[in-house]
Order: sequence, then structure tokens, then C-alpha cells
Amino acid sequence: MKKPLILVTNDDGITSKGISELVSAVKYLGEVVVVAPDSPQSGMGHAITVGDTLRLKRSILFKEIVAYECSGTPADCVKLAKHEILKDRTIDLVVSGVNHGSNTSISVLYSGTMSAAIEGAIEGTPAIGFSLCDYNHKADFTHAVPFIKKIINEVLAKGLPKHIALNVNIPAVQQSPIKGIKLCRQANTRWQEDFDIRVDPYGRNYYWMVGNLINNDSGEDNDEWAIANNYVSIVPCHYDLTSYAALKSIATDWDI
Amino acid sequence: MKKPLILVTNDDGITSKGISELVSAVKYLGEVVVVAPDSPQSGMGHAITVGDTLRLKRSILFKEIVAYECSGTPADCVKLAKHEILKDRTIDLVVSGVNHGSNTSISVLYSGTMSAAIEGAIEGTPAIGFSLCDYNHKADFTHAVPFIKKIINEVLAKGLPKHIALNVNIPAVQQSPIKGIKLCRQANTRWQEDFDIRVDPYGRNYYWMVGNLINNDSGEDNDEWAIANNYVSIVPCHYDLTSYAALKSIATDWDI
Repeated sequence: MKKPLILVTNDDGITSKGISELVSAVKYLGEVVVVAPDSPQSGMGHAITVGDTLRLKRSILFKEIVAYECSGTPADCVKLAKHEILKDRTIDLVVSGVNHGSNTSISVLYSGTMSAAIEGAIEGTPAIGFSLCDYNHKADFTHAVPFIKKIINEVLAKGLPKHIALNVNIPAVQQSPIKGIKLCRQANTRWQEDFDIRVDPYGRNYYWMVGNLINNDSGEDNDEWAIANNYVSIVPCHYDLTSYAALKSIATDWDI
Repeated sequence: MKKPLILVTNDDGITSKGISELVSAVKYLGEVVVVAPDSPQSGMGHAITVGDTLRLKRSILFKEIVAYECSGTPADCVKLAKHEILKDRTIDLVVSGVNHGSNTSISVLYSGTMSAAIEGAIEGTPAIGFSLCDYNHKADFTHAVPFIKKIINEVLAKGLPKHIALNVNIPAVQQSPIKGIKLCRQANTRWQEDFDIRVDPYGRNYYWMVGNLINNDSGEDNDEWAIANNYVSIVPCHYDLTSYAALKSIATDWDI
């Protein structure tokens, strides 16, 4: 059997520990090509570079693996890989991460990690975004690796429904081992922002955004519940933002 | 009756013609506050500023209207407005745009205009993103204004389903007048990217991303069809990315 072609990217940047762990996890599962941002791109959401130029540089960071450092966003990396670097080939799987920090619930919208995976899904390629719920740049990924491999093997063996990307979150290492994997829906949450106002040396204000996650979801079938209860969460994500329920109710209520 | 408090933002930046047209359209409908990016933020998707500072400056651009120029993304503008500038008040409506250029179908994911509106929806505030399908920075908005006012008046009068943002696209001015307003679903499309490779004065390659929209949708109930047929399109958008169909099929197929 032909080895699958696996594209690896992330949003923390090509020098982060998370992508190095992900490359180690996948390198025996197929032919791996890395195209990742040359600087941190956390919180970039589905940003793309439209009004500016992009740079691409061969990277020496991964031994025996073809890798590129890209000046753009995670979504740019996938677009460059698909339509430029690997344009004559078929990518079998896009994996993004492992992110340093959670991308559960509403964070999926702000996450560069997941936007790269969704960009893969748009292209019709099975895609997975992995996040470890630990923001430490030296976080311990040891307990996460068997789950990452298991999920990738399932996707390589069975595929995914067309145009779906998986949002996989893995609890930070704890005293007790992870209980298992839960298929979940995206929890109903929002970030309550605080702005930390400071004064610069020239007497002008500047702001740091500091968010607290407000969980309005009492269900046990969502990703926040899974992580809080020491399960790996998987949310299958699509990108049709149409609210069919609202479409119906507005059609009834409005006079247009 | 108390005048509604309307927050205006955009992604083309506070100096663009589109936001000036939007402010003119809404200033008699309520109390208007503008918080908009101090530079163009097209294609920023749902990016937020997490690893860097934010600046906010009172703007003199809008006569008799409180306005701020923000160094961040469109989503940052809404967060700063909600949780800092207007934190003791209730915003009744968020309007974003008018964008110079279409944000139909898949472009909703990459659009800063729509991310600002969706950020409003996350906060539970009715929100509308407006885009004119004309990229010219001096585009003619005259024909669009009556539709913008009509839609805003409907939303102010009847509200929107909770946590829904409208994605409104308006055809560029044409010989024949706009036929009307269509409630639509998001069309099934993707961008086929080409990369225009150039060589800088130092002999190194750089890339410009150039996309062509591939429309895989033969329906007549979607936003691409509406625009192509000279209708204003409205897609009600939510932000639960869970694919409930995929959740079911994966639960059946997988061995986890």
C-alpha cells in the first residue's frame, strides 16, 4: 500500500514543542511534509494574507522530513501546501498542532490550529486539529501521544465524512490517567473579556486582553464537560455557518 | 422610546468609504458609537490579539459621533466596545461594514466584517455584517443604502433569534435595479488559490495569493445565486461548528 501523504502544520510556530511532538507521532504513519508559521500565530482564527506578500523558506528543523517555514497564518500554510508546494500530489491527511493550550468550545472560532484543519476540510482532505489543555511551552505531551496516534490511525483507516475536520482536545497531564475518548458537540460558552489597562513610558494607555471562559452549558455531551472529566474530546466540525432554524423563523417573521 | 445604542465597526478600516456610508445610514436610527480598526484588516477572519497589546484612540473622523480607532482586529473592536468602552451600557445592535467586496458563501470564514458581527452574536447582541460586491475603494453605495436601512429597521423592530448574525451581501450597482431581498443559505464554494511567485530585489522568492472562487452549488436558495441574479442576499449565521450528522456517523463507524 502507498504511504499516505500527511501535511503537518500548527499555529504556535514551527519551533514549538507541540509540532515537534506531532511530527514524531506521525512520521512512521506516512510521508510527512511540514508547512508551518515562522512565528507564533495564536488567536489568528481563519485569517489569511490577502493584502500582503508571503514568504516560504525550507526548514532544517526536522531531520529527514521536508519542512517549510511560512511567514503567513495557519490557513495560509495549508493553502500554500495544497496549491503550491504539493500541487501535483494528493494530500491524504492534514494534522494541525499539537496546540499549547485548549481549543474547546467557542475557542474553535479564534483558533489558528483549528482554522488550518478546517482549511484542509474545505479542500476535501480529512483533517484533525490537536490541542493539549496546557499552555506551558514545555508542556508534557507523553500521555497525549497514544491518543493522537489512535485517532490518526482511525482517520487513516476509515476516513472522515467529506468536508469535516476533527477538533481534538487532550487534558493536561494529571495524577489519574485519561479515562478515554468522547465524541462531543461544541459546548455553549463565551469569553468574558477584561482589559488590563496600562500606561506606556510616553503617558499613553495600552490594553491587554484577558479573558475568562463563561460556560453556559450544563450538558454532559460537550467538549468542556469531557475535558473537565479527564476525557479526550473530539468535536467533528463543519463550516456551513447557515442557521437553518433562523432561516425558517426569519422567513416567517419578516416582511421582505 | 429610548434610542437604540448601535455599535458600528468594519474591517476595511475607519477611513474607508464603506463605514462612512454605514454611519450615515444609521445615525438617525439611534445613538451611534464607532469602534473600528485604524488600518485595513481584510481577510482577518476571527483573529483576536492575544499575544500583543491593543491601542485605542478617540477619532475625529465622524462629526458629532463618538468614535474610536483601534489597533486590533474587527473582533477586538467589538470586544473592546462591549467590555471596555461601553461596559456599563447595553448595545442594542452591532453593524459591521459596509465591506468593499463580497463576503458571500465560503468567504464568511475569512471575513473580518462578518467576524465582528459574529462576535456581537456571541455576546447575545443582534448583529449584521454588510458587504457590497464591489472592491473599488470609491464604490457607489447609493443603491445599497435603502436596503441597508430596511434591514436594520427590521432587526431593530423584530430582533433576531438569539446568537444569530446576518450576513448581508448587496450586488454592485448595475443597469437594472436590484430585484429584492432573498433569505439564503451559505453556498457550497471554495477558493482555488493561485500563487503569483515573484523575485525580490535580493533574489528571493515571494508570493501573492490570488484566488478564484469555485462554485459547486447548483441550488437557487443560496447567496451566490442571489447575488448573480441581482438580489440582496441575507444568510443568518450561527457559530456552532459541530456537525451533528458527522457526530452520528463517526459514533457508528469508529471503534473508540
